[in-house]
Amino acid sequence: MQYTFSDKVRSLAPSAIREILKFTSMPGVISFAAGNPAPEAFPVDEVRQITAEIMRDNPIDALQYSITEGYTPLRDTVSAYMRSVHHTGTEQDGLIITAGAQQVMDLTCKSLCNEGDTVICEAPTFIGTLNAFRSYNVHLCGVDMEPDGINLEQLEHAMKTEKNVRMLYTIPNFQNPSGITMSLEKRKAVYTLAKKYGVIIVEDNPYGEIRFEGETIPNIKSFDTDGLVVYAGSFSKVLAPGLRLGYAIAPKELLSKVIVCKQVADVHSTILAQMIAHRFMTEYDFAAHLQRIRKIYYHKAHLMMDLADQLFDGKITYHPVQGGLFLWCALPDGVDMMDFCTRAVQQKVAVVPGNAFLVDESLPCQNFRMNFSTPTDEQLEQGMQILGRLSAEL
Amino acid sequence: MQYTFSDKVRSLAPSAIREILKFTSMPGVISFAAGNPAPEAFPVDEVRQITAEIMRDNPIDALQYSITEGYTPLRDTVSAYMRSVHHTGTEQDGLIITAGAQQVMDLTCKSLCNEGDTVICEAPTFIGTLNAFRSYNVHLCGVDMEPDGINLEQLEHAMKTEKNVRMLYTIPNFQNPSGITMSLEKRKAVYTLAKKYGVIIVEDNPYGEIRFEGETIPNIKSFDTDGLVVYAGSFSKVLAPGLRLGYAIAPKELLSKVIVCKQVADVHSTILAQMIAHRFMTEYDFAAHLQRIRKIYYHKAHLMMDLADQLFDGKITYHPVQGGLFLWCALPDGVDMMDFCTRAVQQKVAVVPGNAFLVDESLPCQNFRMNFSTPTDEQLEQGMQILGRLSAEL
Repeated sequence: MQYTFSDKVRSLAPSAIREILKFTSMPGVISFAAGNPAPEAFPVDEVRQITAEIMRDNPIDALQYSITEGYTPLRDTVSAYMRSVHHTGTEQDGLIITAGAQQVMDLTCKSLCNEGDTVICEAPTFIGTLNAFRSYNVHLCGVDMEPDGINLEQLEHAMKTEKNVRMLYTIPNFQNPSGITMSLEKRKAVYTLAKKYGVIIVEDNPYGEIRFEGETIPNIKSFDTDGLVVYAGSFSKVLAPGLRLGYAIAPKELLSKVIVCKQVADVHSTILAQMIAHRFMTEYDFAAHLQRIRKIYYHKAHLMMDLADQLFDGKITYHPVQGGLFLWCALPDGVDMMDFCTRAVQQKVAVVPGNAFLVDESLPCQNFRMNFSTPTDEQLEQGMQILGRLSAEL
Repeated sequence: MQYTFSDKVRSLAPSAIREILKFTSMPGVISFAAGNPAPEAFPVDEVRQITAEIMRDNPIDALQYSITEGYTPLRDTVSAYMRSVHHTGTEQDGLIITAGAQQVMDLTCKSLCNEGDTVICEAPTFIGTLNAFRSYNVHLCGVDMEPDGINLEQLEHAMKTEKNVRMLYTIPNFQNPSGITMSLEKRKAVYTLAKKYGVIIVEDNPYGEIRFEGETIPNIKSFDTDGLVVYAGSFSKVLAPGLRLGYAIAPKELLSKVIVCKQVADVHSTILAQMIAHRFMTEYDFAAHLQRIRKIYYHKAHLMMDLADQLFDGKITYHPVQGGLFLWCALPDGVDMMDFCTRAVQQKVAVVPGNAFLVDESLPCQNFRMNFSTPTDEQLEQGMQILGRLSAEL
């Protein structure tokens, strides 16, 4: 049988990161290529206790069908938390529980975009989202990143000139992969432009809660008085990614279509996982837990940055971060980035070639991404020593 | 803000069943409208024990990111089970774990169909699948059901004359809502037609394992030597729907696109739920569990059928079933079906109007669907008494 695939998926390929991750299963390879949270950041004892309580007190609720919007006590808890702690979401907004923030990207794009419509993305940006958008055959338009966030002139030019611009996708905090945090001034300017051109902002914030230094900057959604912003949150970095839980806070009318799309996609998210998240947020000290994991990431980020300062000798530079999971590195001009990444993996350190994060992977790119949350301290030390030797050869 | 939705979701509405289910939360309403498995069919003690063991032995595996294809031990277990017990799947096929069988429908349609392509469905059929297909703006073509399955003449006519026919969707066992099981002869004829016209068969089999009487009929996938069949299985009726676990067995090349679509949809399904299903299938007597739940459904189905025989006086007829969760009833000619369903809910018994299951809901329909798995025996008795009184008034 010769299979004919739809136009939207025909050219869709597994993410380049996944291809590189294959090397990480080779014996002895140190992976700076993943994006997994540190396992020591998982509240294992608490989840063990909670799970036992749920299976003792509410087993039928945990096993039966539930509603598409999500487990009501969890929705109420997250909604109240985001309003009180982050001023995010109003009476005009609804909240639904999703299968990670990834599903917010998938369903929002499906709800708003026809094939050929334009979605503006930061360049570089998260490959999982790029592929979600590609899977609806939209036209992706990348806008360059600056140290304080997206380039506003390019952004307005794109909004003005591209055809049927429906969404702007942004990760304002500790952007994956660049590590860049958008300034408050730019957040407001981006909102103003989106309003002017009638573009929905999809604000993806998986890393906001793991800021380990500096001052929190308000979410774009916190000044959304016009119903322009779909805010995507995630439990993957603050609880556990294996539970596959995220959420969308969005204007009710827009969310109603996203809910119908979720209903036909998976009916609802795993209810046991939702009940675990609810009990974790309400019966334990969530703020103290966040403080604990921020310390873990502070330590790991600074270990990697300190090693980079010592070992890269200024040849390989990076964007310093105050949160998130990644360091975005730049090779000197004239160095072949893909060749460097290949030599690194041959020396048993896996990093991700930066072009994987571009709308157009064929564009020139001198960057690669390193993750500091997954490796142990010892692996961080060893891997950075190897990259340091490669750096010295440049 | 005025929202502009994509063409594919603009006319998409929550399922009519969900609207009717709203009545079921009214005090005192007996619901024959749901499709929930009987809670007494859940292996609560086993899941409680398993969950405690996972959180004791493998908590990090249960909480960390995993691979899109699914938890490898579960994939291997289901694959071996389906091959040995149901002769379903070969070396040419792969198996992925999904968020219920619902996700198989969503991702297969996304992978194979452009907007406007034709998908052939049984008429009536499962509304969740109809809406999944509608959400990709395909052209749905309904083919009438006969007591032994889909009408073959209409099916061939549709395959021959409709534009870009990409898929045929069928539920061969205890079809939802009609309760009809396709004969072996028709299964073979359907396969031959699909091969002749190059159409992919999506075989949805959520109820096959809960046959409580009669002989099992081989799955269409069991004679798929040409790579034509995507088989969708589910844990919702044999374990617990709240876990949101299903699977697809399909030709590897076709499955590779479905996997990429799943990667961008939700990364992977909840790993704790997958580990629970794996341990349940391997550490407990799965066959004995199936025997136990078949007895539950045998009892409930026969209770409802016996009451219908006693109380409907032949005015309201139904298709007798040997499995599944539903009875499909027909009102006498001249009776207004929607009026009957409305009067039933006013009398505090909710059933689902049959037109909800049609490709074109505006077509004339004398049917309604009743579920026997969710109500208690007492509710079955009370509800059927009420419907019996309404029947007597016809």
